[in-house]
Amino acid sequence: MWIVCADLEGVFVPEIWVNVAKKTGIEELKLTTREIKDYDQLMKYRLDILDKHNLKLQDIQEVINTLDPLPGALEFIRDIRKVTRFAIVSDTFVEFAQPLMNKLENPFLLCHNLETDSTGRITNYCLRQADPKRKTVQAFKSLNYKVAAFGDSYNDCTMIAEADKGILFCPPDNVKADFPQFPVVTDLASLKAELMKTVCE
Amino acid sequence: MWIVCADLEGVFVPEIWVNVAKKTGIEELKLTTREIKDYDQLMKYRLDILDKHNLKLQDIQEVINTLDPLPGALEFIRDIRKVTRFAIVSDTFVEFAQPLMNKLENPFLLCHNLETDSTGRITNYCLRQADPKRKTVQAFKSLNYKVAAFGDSYNDCTMIAEADKGILFCPPDNVKADFPQFPVVTDLASLKAELMKTVCE
Repeated sequence: MWIVCADLEGVFVPEIWVNVAKKTGIEELKLTTREIKDYDQLMKYRLDILDKHNLKLQDIQEVINTLDPLPGALEFIRDIRKVTRFAIVSDTFVEFAQPLMNKLENPFLLCHNLETDSTGRITNYCLRQADPKRKTVQAFKSLNYKVAAFGDSYNDCTMIAEADKGILFCPPDNVKADFPQFPVVTDLASLKAELMKTVCE
Repeated sequence: MWIVCADLEGVFVPEIWVNVAKKTGIEELKLTTREIKDYDQLMKYRLDILDKHNLKLQDIQEVINTLDPLPGALEFIRDIRKVTRFAIVSDTFVEFAQPLMNKLENPFLLCHNLETDSTGRITNYCLRQADPKRKTVQAFKSLNYKVAAFGDSYNDCTMIAEADKGILFCPPDNVKADFPQFPVVTDLASLKAELMKTVCE
């Protein structure tokens, strides 16, 4: 029996911070781990920017609520959930993902979370654990499941490596070049076909 | 952050074997672990009865498809899934549960599975692992989640004991008497209120 573990941003929904930057017009929020390598430093920088603009969690959630899942995402998730176990394993924060999860019919989501104060100001962020994607695959394996995992980015690669079946989905060229051992799929229809074949084997 | 782990039969859907017995009129299928203590012996007996009546997996699934979730189950699951992570952890078989899962909008389900031959005859059953409910709670704890778990029967008690918050839901008197340390809740509305309080703490 299989469990399918999927990345979220870039696969089923647009990149959240990039789109918050676009929608709010706050240029500084466009920085990603490409510009600031240290994730902790990047997140502190982002929370400072939100403070500077007096943006509360609810403001960001309202912006995120104007985003839509990527084309075909809901149908893909519906079809997969009918035939196997499906978990989204993401490095986003549950408070940011929630508006998009509602639009995807609330699949099982494992990710991080934010801390807010009584005014709704985001005071800190909590990473669930180190290397959370790999550890999720290991936890499901400890329950005697086989795991199929896919994602598009560097933070997915320990999960993809740990899985019984790992796939890079629409990776950028640098990820593809750094992990030539992983098969690459570039559209949701082919990905679904590949997963269906795997879980029904 | 919390994950809610829920039992299935007797909580969200009727007891599957009991109802298959009723709907097919096959009296021998009414036996449960109360009459035959050894689960392995009971399952072999059940599969023999199905063979004797020439009932294939599809026949049983058609019977199960005439069953409905218990009143309030779908609304409960919808509401819980909007605010937290929700997993059903059951000792049923995925092939039996599937028709009912569709009616519950396919929540994340961890359970066992059946083996069938090319004619659809059920040839064997595969238990995922020993003490699967407890191990599921342990796996989620290894991912730094707190776990709230509930169920109605003896097979739920290791899960309830292992959880950070454990609740007996509508247990029979013998279960209640044997596990006086567990709090008891007797309706879905109170259970939902208790869980919402817990996961939003």
